[in-house]
Amino acid sequence: MAERVAGPEIERLIQLLARLPGLGPRSARRAALHLIRKREEHEKIMVCSACGNVDTVDPCTICADVRRDPGVLVVVETVADLWALERSGAIRARYHVLGGTLSPLDGVGPKDLNLETLPGRVAAEGLREIILAVNATVDGQTTAHYITDLVGHLGVTVTRLAHGVPVGGELDYLDEGTLSAAIRQRTAF
Amino acid sequence: MAERVAGPEIERLIQLLARLPGLGPRSARRAALHLIRKREEHEKIMVCSACGNVDTVDPCTICADVRRDPGVLVVVETVADLWALERSGAIRARYHVLGGTLSPLDGVGPKDLNLETLPGRVAAEGLREIILAVNATVDGQTTAHYITDLVGHLGVTVTRLAHGVPVGGELDYLDEGTLSAAIRQRTAF
Repeated sequence: MAERVAGPEIERLIQLLARLPGLGPRSARRAALHLIRKREEHEKIMVCSACGNVDTVDPCTICADVRRDPGVLVVVETVADLWALERSGAIRARYHVLGGTLSPLDGVGPKDLNLETLPGRVAAEGLREIILAVNATVDGQTTAHYITDLVGHLGVTVTRLAHGVPVGGELDYLDEGTLSAAIRQRTAF
Repeated sequence: MAERVAGPEIERLIQLLARLPGLGPRSARRAALHLIRKREEHEKIMVCSACGNVDTVDPCTICADVRRDPGVLVVVETVADLWALERSGAIRARYHVLGGTLSPLDGVGPKDLNLETLPGRVAAEGLREIILAVNATVDGQTTAHYITDLVGHLGVTVTRLAHGVPVGGELDYLDEGTLSAAIRQRTAF
């Protein structure tokens, strides 16, 4: 793991789980998240009141990290996605964890997600950019459009992740939508 | 298939192969390419002298298509990649098929690829852009750098495909390099 993404107790839990036979690093992180969600009311695990991350402190280790750019907020669906981005080391910013995506077919509406506090964070934290790091799925994109409507008039730039060829990817195995996006968003070499 | 990417005889071969049990559309295209390569010297199949595509005419159906933008050339590793891009409908340009990638470990050097005619095409066809649509693998990127050195001084813009999240992709399953690229190349929503 490139860097600690949560307090030492959670990291320790992940390390212990990773020693179990059949559990790789990803399974261990998923198992840890599952255990944490199950025991959320107990003991030391708590949900960060600012961003929705799980940690043993509130605000969480990431929200309390003064070395991060306070003007950029990365919106993710789940804590697992937050961890994935932290592992990549791609950005040093703060997060906002939705806890899912809008899904009318499954009866998931705006009230079921951690959306209420998001517009207020724009002014309170002086945000200049919100990065929508939601999955490139239909529900993810529906959610992205909803959030753009929610905060688009507040004077903050809303961006989304680039679509394209994954690193190591071979063109012949990619779907047409990805190839189109990769051509459209091509960059100077 | 979005559109015919080769002459009707090759399309017919692919359709016939796709009827075989166990062969999906992709397998049928791969099988067709294999048969074509094996029989390259026979009958009507020929390699396009301009771009390296396979077809039953020379120049191939794509090179002869006057509706394509003559100022843009897409460099691909194989005919399978050319077909993948044509299926996506992402771009209406012409191609240059390398026939592989540079791979010093496997003894594949510049002389083994269809590279000799590439610099000449820039002036002869008045190219303004070369899109390097090579795989996001080590060999693919090595080849991309070599081609950039080869044509970079000829006054043509060299671009490459965007790296990022494939359509339908979930962040938790992506590698760190892809996530970093998706954040770096993020776009306004």
